[in-house]
Amino acid sequence: MRWCRYHHDGTVAFGLLDGQNVDEVDGSPFDGYIVTGVRRRLADIRLLTPCLPPTFYCAGLNYKAHIEWGERRRNIRIPIPDRPDIGYRAQSALTAPDSPIVIPARSSGDVHYEGELVAVIGRPARRVTQDEALDYVLGYTIGNDVSERTWAAQDRTLWRAKNSDTFKPMGPWIQTGLDPTNLDVIVKVNDSIVSEFNTSAMIFGVAEYISTISEYITLRPGDVVWTGTDNATDRIAPGDVVEISVAGIGTLRNPVVGEPGCPPTNDRRMTDHD
Amino acid sequence: MRWCRYHHDGTVAFGLLDGQNVDEVDGSPFDGYIVTGVRRRLADIRLLTPCLPPTFYCAGLNYKAHIEWGERRRNIRIPIPDRPDIGYRAQSALTAPDSPIVIPARSSGDVHYEGELVAVIGRPARRVTQDEALDYVLGYTIGNDVSERTWAAQDRTLWRAKNSDTFKPMGPWIQTGLDPTNLDVIVKVNDSIVSEFNTSAMIFGVAEYISTISEYITLRPGDVVWTGTDNATDRIAPGDVVEISVAGIGTLRNPVVGEPGCPPTNDRRMTDHD
Repeated sequence: MRWCRYHHDGTVAFGLLDGQNVDEVDGSPFDGYIVTGVRRRLADIRLLTPCLPPTFYCAGLNYKAHIEWGERRRNIRIPIPDRPDIGYRAQSALTAPDSPIVIPARSSGDVHYEGELVAVIGRPARRVTQDEALDYVLGYTIGNDVSERTWAAQDRTLWRAKNSDTFKPMGPWIQTGLDPTNLDVIVKVNDSIVSEFNTSAMIFGVAEYISTISEYITLRPGDVVWTGTDNATDRIAPGDVVEISVAGIGTLRNPVVGEPGCPPTNDRRMTDHD
Repeated sequence: MRWCRYHHDGTVAFGLLDGQNVDEVDGSPFDGYIVTGVRRRLADIRLLTPCLPPTFYCAGLNYKAHIEWGERRRNIRIPIPDRPDIGYRAQSALTAPDSPIVIPARSSGDVHYEGELVAVIGRPARRVTQDEALDYVLGYTIGNDVSERTWAAQDRTLWRAKNSDTFKPMGPWIQTGLDPTNLDVIVKVNDSIVSEFNTSAMIFGVAEYISTISEYITLRPGDVVWTGTDNATDRIAPGDVVEISVAGIGTLRNPVVGEPGCPPTNDRRMTDHD
């Protein structure tokens, strides 16, 4: 099944995708639902983030090549985590498929994409083993963990760096029935591939994250776990279009715009290549 | 006005407190409401956390005596923040007035209270000045930022240390019309006063936190900003009762219990006094 959440004629609903059509439901995949019988064309609705997570978990560092890139870029030693590196992002930063990523006026311009697989929790999970953890996942979607690198170096909690308005595109929908351990992820900027990796390269998998969190915390329906990115990342600038594709799910696409006063486009892409 | 949120006969509602009675409303203080005409006795309902914040902001270090205590305890130098130290807590950790704080089985037992004033956002705030920031606050409530000090030293993001289940008691209600800049806060454990401070000692006030966050992020109705604690803190253990009172609001009271396997009560209160 492919769950979406959308806006149409002033109302918000969950729906089930069937090719280019969406069957509206009354309720949600988390609290129970009935199919209303209303069918719309995907082209006629506006997709929203496929859920609004009560708690928004993320992996900090979870891919080796991305850690090694960080070491080269910052000329520091970053240890490979010896246990899941669990953190949070903010619901306030979420933005929908096709909605713009906005470079803030005060940004240095050093704003990067980060393509990620996202697990969406389907039912309450407390003290679940790794073997059973994936049974608590409703399905998977795609996230872009947009990051302002200058602020990341300045702010202990990454609040602006990771959570400025529009910095967390998520979607386009939730795909059920996927195995998260072997999915190809492709990131494109303006139709050029800028990163390719497979989720098998995660240092700690989805099951280990969920099991570890659940030792201390009850995961709730609609919570999301973003699982980290691999490889080097690079700047995005006003005028760019970022597309993140995960095999079996689809493509999360977002254009990039700039607030008035943000650094001009042509100052970008001059650093951080290695 | 005094807003509460409660559970009665299988339903959850917002209500307006009038002495020992509660007038039920249809809707919420955030989205509009009508008073239904149903009046209940406060003694007959079960109070819940007065809101469920979409985004849960907190001050990291915001009182000088608490920072100095941290320096002595950990024998390190902790700089006074030169700008608001903005972070996040998790909705998953919230627990209601009178609900137990549960010491986790794996805890070292070094679990502390932290009494805090909490601002509840009433309407969307983006790029608001300090002068106008408090106009975006619906009112104030009380939080206990329960903290596992051993985990705080181990985990970069404080995820377990601050957000284990039940670690964020909040309530008992939201008081409107308060000036947050000069409120007495009293923390009691088992009827003994263990901390007293005034919110005038905040390094950065509520207005400055809201204005600073709003430069980058849209604060939404129902979001909360916890404002930090002052002074030394100390351990709580199964059997204790923690009460945090803020003048003009009321008292947030929570008993402490232990999960099976958590450290025995009599191992507590042996360190961290100074």
